Amino acid sequence: MSLTVIRGGLVITAAEETPADVLIDGGRVAALAAHGSEIASGWSGSADRVIDATGKYVIPGGVDTHTHMELPFGGTFASDTFETGTRAAAWGGTTTIVDFAVQTAGNSLRAGLDAWHAKADGACAVDYAFHMIMSDVNEDTLKEMDGLVDEGVTSFKLFMAYPGVFYSDDGRILRAMQRSAGNGGLIMMHAENGIAIDVLVEQALAEGRTDPRHHGEVRHALLEAEATHRAIQLARVAGAPLYVVHVSAREAVAELAQARDLGLNVFGETCPQYLFLSADNLAEPGFEGAKYVCSTPLRPREHQEFLWRGLRTNDLQVVSTDHCPFCFTGQKELGRGDFSKIPNGLPGVEDRMDLLHQAVVEGRISRRRWIEIACATPARMFGLYPRKGTIAPGADADIVIYNPDAGHVISAETHHMNVDYSAYEGRTVTGRVETVLSRGELVIDDRSYVGRAGHGRYTPRGTCQYLI
Amino acid sequence: MSLTVIRGGLVITAAEETPADVLIDGGRVAALAAHGSEIASGWSGSADRVIDATGKYVIPGGVDTHTHMELPFGGTFASDTFETGTRAAAWGGTTTIVDFAVQTAGNSLRAGLDAWHAKADGACAVDYAFHMIMSDVNEDTLKEMDGLVDEGVTSFKLFMAYPGVFYSDDGRILRAMQRSAGNGGLIMMHAENGIAIDVLVEQALAEGRTDPRHHGEVRHALLEAEATHRAIQLARVAGAPLYVVHVSAREAVAELAQARDLGLNVFGETCPQYLFLSADNLAEPGFEGAKYVCSTPLRPREHQEFLWRGLRTNDLQVVSTDHCPFCFTGQKELGRGDFSKIPNGLPGVEDRMDLLHQAVVEGRISRRRWIEIACATPARMFGLYPRKGTIAPGADADIVIYNPDAGHVISAETHHMNVDYSAYEGRTVTGRVETVLSRGELVIDDRSYVGRAGHGRYTPRGTCQYLI
Amino acid sequence: MSLTVIRGGLVITAAEETPADVLIDGGRVAALAAHGSEIASGWSGSADRVIDATGKYVIPGGVDTHTHMELPFGGTFASDTFETGTRAAAWGGTTTIVDFAVQTAGNSLRAGLDAWHAKADGACAVDYAFHMIMSDVNEDTLKEMDGLVDEGVTSFKLFMAYPGVFYSDDGRILRAMQRSAGNGGLIMMHAENGIAIDVLVEQALAEGRTDPRHHGEVRHALLEAEATHRAIQLARVAGAPLYVVHVSAREAVAELAQARDLGLNVFGETCPQYLFLSADNLAEPGFEGAKYVCSTPLRPREHQEFLWRGLRTNDLQVVSTDHCPFCFTGQKELGRGDFSKIPNGLPGVEDRMDLLHQAVVEGRISRRRWIEIACATPARMFGLYPRKGTIAPGADADIVIYNPDAGHVISAETHHMNVDYSAYEGRTVTGRVETVLSRGELVIDDRSYVGRAGHGRYTPRGTCQYLI
Amino acid sequence: MSLTVIRGGLVITAAEETPADVLIDGGRVAALAAHGSEIASGWSGSADRVIDATGKYVIPGGVDTHTHMELPFGGTFASDTFETGTRAAAWGGTTTIVDFAVQTAGNSLRAGLDAWHAKADGACAVDYAFHMIMSDVNEDTLKEMDGLVDEGVTSFKLFMAYPGVFYSDDGRILRAMQRSAGNGGLIMMHAENGIAIDVLVEQALAEGRTDPRHHGEVRHALLEAEATHRAIQLARVAGAPLYVVHVSAREAVAELAQARDLGLNVFGETCPQYLFLSADNLAEPGFEGAKYVCSTPLRPREHQEFLWRGLRTNDLQVVSTDHCPFCFTGQKELGRGDFSKIPNGLPGVEDRMDLLHQAVVEGRISRRRWIEIACATPARMFGLYPRKGTIAPGADADIVIYNPDAGHVISAETHHMNVDYSAYEGRTVTGRVETVLSRGELVIDDRSYVGRAGHGRYTPRGTCQYLI
Repeated sequence: MSLTVIRGGLVITAAEETPADVLIDGGRVAALAAHGSEIASGWSGSADRVIDATGKYVIPGGVDTHTHMELPFGGTFASDTFETGTRAAAWGGTTTIVDFAVQTAGNSLRAGLDAWHAKADGACAVDYAFHMIMSDVNEDTLKEMDGLVDEGVTSFKLFMAYPGVFYSDDGRILRAMQRSAGNGGLIMMHAENGIAIDVLVEQALAEGRTDPRHHGEVRHALLEAEATHRAIQLARVAGAPLYVVHVSAREAVAELAQARDLGLNVFGETCPQYLFLSADNLAEPGFEGAKYVCSTPLRPREHQEFLWRGLRTNDLQVVSTDHCPFCFTGQKELGRGDFSKIPNGLPGVEDRMDLLHQAVVEGRISRRRWIEIACATPARMFGLYPRKGTIAPGADADIVIYNPDAGHVISAETHHMNVDYSAYEGRTVTGRVETVLSRGELVIDDRSYVGRAGHGRYTPRGTCQYLI
Repeated sequence: MSLTVIRGGLVITAAEETPADVLIDGGRVAALAAHGSEIASGWSGSADRVIDATGKYVIPGGVDTHTHMELPFGGTFASDTFETGTRAAAWGGTTTIVDFAVQTAGNSLRAGLDAWHAKADGACAVDYAFHMIMSDVNEDTLKEMDGLVDEGVTSFKLFMAYPGVFYSDDGRILRAMQRSAGNGGLIMMHAENGIAIDVLVEQALAEGRTDPRHHGEVRHALLEAEATHRAIQLARVAGAPLYVVHVSAREAVAELAQARDLGLNVFGETCPQYLFLSADNLAEPGFEGAKYVCSTPLRPREHQEFLWRGLRTNDLQVVSTDHCPFCFTGQKELGRGDFSKIPNGLPGVEDRMDLLHQAVVEGRISRRRWIEIACATPARMFGLYPRKGTIAPGADADIVIYNPDAGHVISAETHHMNVDYSAYEGRTVTGRVETVLSRGELVIDDRSYVGRAGHGRYTPRGTCQYLI
Repeated sequence: MSLTVIRGGLVITAAEETPADVLIDGGRVAALAAHGSEIASGWSGSADRVIDATGKYVIPGGVDTHTHMELPFGGTFASDTFETGTRAAAWGGTTTIVDFAVQTAGNSLRAGLDAWHAKADGACAVDYAFHMIMSDVNEDTLKEMDGLVDEGVTSFKLFMAYPGVFYSDDGRILRAMQRSAGNGGLIMMHAENGIAIDVLVEQALAEGRTDPRHHGEVRHALLEAEATHRAIQLARVAGAPLYVVHVSAREAVAELAQARDLGLNVFGETCPQYLFLSADNLAEPGFEGAKYVCSTPLRPREHQEFLWRGLRTNDLQVVSTDHCPFCFTGQKELGRGDFSKIPNGLPGVEDRMDLLHQAVVEGRISRRRWIEIACATPARMFGLYPRKGTIAPGADADIVIYNPDAGHVISAETHHMNVDYSAYEGRTVTGRVETVLSRGELVIDDRSYVGRAGHGRYTPRGTCQYLI
Repeated sequence: MSLTVIRGGLVITAAEETPADVLIDGGRVAALAAHGSEIASGWSGSADRVIDATGKYVIPGGVDTHTHMELPFGGTFASDTFETGTRAAAWGGTTTIVDFAVQTAGNSLRAGLDAWHAKADGACAVDYAFHMIMSDVNEDTLKEMDGLVDEGVTSFKLFMAYPGVFYSDDGRILRAMQRSAGNGGLIMMHAENGIAIDVLVEQALAEGRTDPRHHGEVRHALLEAEATHRAIQLARVAGAPLYVVHVSAREAVAELAQARDLGLNVFGETCPQYLFLSADNLAEPGFEGAKYVCSTPLRPREHQEFLWRGLRTNDLQVVSTDHCPFCFTGQKELGRGDFSKIPNGLPGVEDRMDLLHQAVVEGRISRRRWIEIACATPARMFGLYPRKGTIAPGADADIVIYNPDAGHVISAETHHMNVDYSAYEGRTVTGRVETVLSRGELVIDDRSYVGRAGHGRYTPRGTCQYLI
């Protein structure tokens, strides 16, 4: 097996900042040794490859547990394939994605999962795993859940929105939660009261309020908070843990905080778009707002500070991207004159690690918290630990050499996602991914892509490792 | 016009305790004068009738804003007609009821209201009014709401439970609330997550948990609290006030308290059965528990103190009965072997004033609070003030002479409701209705019934007078 | 005895709005009768005086339970005597004041009370009573409390601020509360952490921050909230009720709301200055800010809405004035160059009823709530009910004829308080006191003062009637 | 330098559970390598000492940040010297203590610190550091704080209890907090309202309630919560972080939780006695209760679950011992007939790691959380990280080999603390310390003490590393 040494860097994990050299053997971390120690000194001689990380951070590869490659939505498809999307992920320092396989109504979970395997198989630059979106909750799909958990698909997403498409009513949600309480699965919830929202959508359109900004207004913050509260109570009745995806409203964070104060296994994820963008973007003139249409929607700017606070207080545990890109031309444009027809979703898989590092630079979170919310907790939450999310003996050598001082400008001109705009166009950030290893192999080598489609492996997952 | 004087009593209203004589002229209170004042002394001579209330309380007739006379439910009918039910109400010191007219799915509100008018017309011993139960919320019924408000049916009950019967989904609830925000109507909510509860019902029955006590267990307190929270958030989105009926769970009281701390127009009603009975009754052996089956269900005993506290802190504002009697023999028995088939409802219209006075005796509430929650606030809440609910110049002379010292035993042997059991059988209470006037006419005269069917008049109502 | 009739007005109490004529006999309300009733029609003929209130409100005289006439403070005296102050009160529609007798350190409560009796005796235009400020809490004064309660001084004010003057430490507060739990007295608390505030005062002065606005800044809102919380906990330990005076910070309101949600007998008072003025006034240029120096201080404007909300939710129950006027010239000026030397206090006894009516006009509170917070609850809170605070048979005929439509401008030019400025100079309000009766005698007759020093009687009080 | 290898164990830190061998070189951890890796295999040959940890846990040495060796209290001294106490600590798997140097009133901080250095110098079996108890807060001591922070005494304990001894009033507390906000020090608070408590103590004694159980009753839970709330508000005003010692009441945990939901740097410590003992122990017959007298006091049993919950939700971050032993004979007995004379304190430095492991066994906390609350967070909180509290390259080799399966019985017969009773006498726990290294040197070798007084070094500390 080939030996790689990463020397001279500051190894940062969720828990430690260690000036240490890292020895990689056969795709895994074999050892860490203190800089300048006798033992470390011996490694360089015997290594096949030595990477100098002096003055750099040596961090676990990012784990993005919310992506939608090639997702069919509103008559079109998310514009990143697994190939383009995982390559962009690697460029952005993310070495594992968990994407959502979709069960379409009337079909089996298995069929949905098979379809997603077919899309991803042989295409990925970095490792990947799957959650399962359940469109039906019935005796058949409930039984299938058990089997999927056993084979490594251990989380199941339900929707309180999108009636007629993904929506599950409270009875179906309760049944799925009860089942997950038994089989160890984790229910992930899109928490918006879609039944009420659709009334507001209909009223808005009927009154000629058709611009993108109305997308944000009709998806009322209180209706996110309501659904969050409801999902929590249903989870309590079922005795099951709960993970709420893409939390955007301060009122929803408050519901999570209240539940967590009670010691409940209730978790919340937010995304960079809610932390860095706002309803102001939705209101940009000339249909530009369509670029920022996603659900839950961007909120007024004053919500941001409550999301950051939630990340600091651990009332929010994970930052994922909900990466679901649609080109402005030809895709977002489907909703001109009717915001409800704008495909929902933003690109972001490439930007997450940098944006969160920017929050470190700006003093919002610590370096360790950066790694915790972007790598370690996502891995634990979804049963990938300790292979993913940390740098420790035995872990997969998914490692990023991060230059904390190099600034760059985010732009569609330079990004690698297959989408014709950037939600963060022109934003300058400090910090940049320089080198990326996936299971010990170079994917990005000093800002050059050296990876390949098919390197990335499907990674079955265990059950949630974050329960208290 | 005939003049009546009530002399020597302590006049108790929500706000005052006044040793005063009351002069009644033409069905209304003409004047109050201090005991022994020159002006009062003159009245006795000129009066047609003098009622001596020395040592007694002179209180407004009770206003029970939640009754279901002759309600069709589960293939049978509530056993009190408007005739028997309002006569029993009078015996219990209640001189106004607001009953629920029912719109059945597919028909107009008007048709439902007409049907209820037909039942009540000419039958009632005391005055009555109607709320409207909406089974459908659609363009037609929304328009009808406006008209009903104008003609004095100003409150509309929706159900978050009973799918397939009364259930409205959140979109329909939102629409009805929006409409009420415009027309001044008040939405009354049965707040239980019936969709989730029905899953638990089905599971319980499938597992052989069929006894009455399981009725209480499957209708989980958290699912009452959840629905209460949801209704509040929908009302906030709609900008409408909200009245939650038959609150029984401490967690639901907490939701109301939290909303009220925000200054929202959110109101809660509880009922004597939740204050005086508990899940212990549901667990009585030999199908006796069926007598206590109602929804929301009786809760474990420890919830009671939080309901009493809510009444003291004004987080609960009204105590009504939800009077909906079914005989044990032949009606409650429909649910032997399947609690879900037990008709839901308890008798109580005759017992409310006494039971709440018992709470005065036991120091739980003050005398004035007794009148406030049983007479004044119900009247204000539903637009009957100041004709009903108080004793003041100009008010209807609906007056009860109440002996605070006379004890009696509640029993089906002696009650006047048309039902073969009492939920409070054998309970001794201190205090008794002695004489009852409705618009100045005697209905109960020193413990004799002297009223008549048809005296009671339909009373159109104004809109809610309790908003802040 | 002479008979007076007030005819044609709308009688407004905390609970009712009744179109009724009021018959006054011998200083008390003898009867109320409906407009146009036969009984009322007879009154005018036999009355000695008929006051036409058509188109006007007939309201209970205001009860201002927080005044400081002739208070010695900071080397000077509040500029209103009992004579000038109660005359101004009458002009403003207030017919009862409860002033604070002061026990000075080392002397008996009795001596302090005697001194205040001497000041007030024969001087007052309207009725008055006393609270007692305790500067010492020791075995002697604790014993004296019992006696004072028996003779009608039933409330005792303690200070968590002003060390070396009025300050009591937590042990003394606890002892006084324990005593009041036994004797029925009510502890009134000036809730500010004066020990901490004095550190901030010293630091501000040392750093040259000497302007009036720094008075507001050093008396930090959190230090009001802290003391409020502390007083509540001490009251819980003692098992005693608590009344917090002059609440000004939203954080303090939150503490009260939280306590009240628990069903505790905890009460809060605010004052017009906190509702209508703000820290902006303290920051007025040229030492003008000194006019607005009082403690607790005026807060930033955004606190106001939380005070109004507290009044609507009944988390605040009373609006009194804390009337404690000091002339700008010669008194407030003592603090030029050192805000800590500015005498603390504002004039207001004449303005309260009008300012609160203005809130009615602006839709912040209802007419009944106006009377409740300004008349009825103050009377109940301090044991003056039902003689004061309402219009009912048997009550003292302290009655104001209020013209709701007449506007006027508040100004030192026209006010009757003995102070050279108005805190509300130039403010236009809608509504005006026209006629005032005190125990049936005219004090203000259609905007003319016809009262006299000495009419006002000392009124012993019972214990708190507002406990739940 | 000598090399030690610990092989075959499961290395557990706050963040990771890694099957790894640990290489120790010159008192520090040099490297970790995966079990069976080529690199690890080479280590055994070159090592001077190989410790086989197969089947055992390899954990960081415990960090107990709250001990009182030789503390003078109530006319006597805590019975453990630094020699006996640190030896017992080592036996219990604790390799660092932070003890409290005491400034006595009127003397300098320096003098107090010097005195404590003199006690500890040359006496300790394991490493130690100091906090500083401030009895005076004045210009001199405030200035001294800055210097102490610079030299490694970075935390300062203040008392809201014990007037006349350690008590600081709120002004002094505020000043010390302001100073710490500037110099990076951390204020540690004994949060009990001692002024109020002393009133209750006096009353209890006067009424003959003199038994140990009354110690618990007079130190009312609400008075702990009150002081906790007050300290938090003062810290907010000062802009300083706060660490509350020995939290025992559920109401105090609630205050911390509320503060932490706001994102404040407020921290709480509890101790094993509050988690495992209760007021029942204080009520043991025959003066046995004296063994359990400490302040804050043991609470009724129902508080325990809220402490455990706080540890799970991270509303409590640290478990230390407040080790302060007094022999029953001759010391605790000083308080026969007067609970207030019982020296306050319990032994525990030897029991902490085992008791908390027992909580792991019982499912209350995870293994990683055990290490976090007992090792990692205490080290971070008090500036000892990463030398103490973890096992990572560069860290001090303070390591414990812990047998998770070996049961033992806690008893004064077998413990090593210099005290004649155990608070946990007879309690069986699963798990035992087998071998302990301090900076790479054996202190306990397979259940034999091989350490020596004087091995333990004074360890200057940095400032708090746990701020968000």
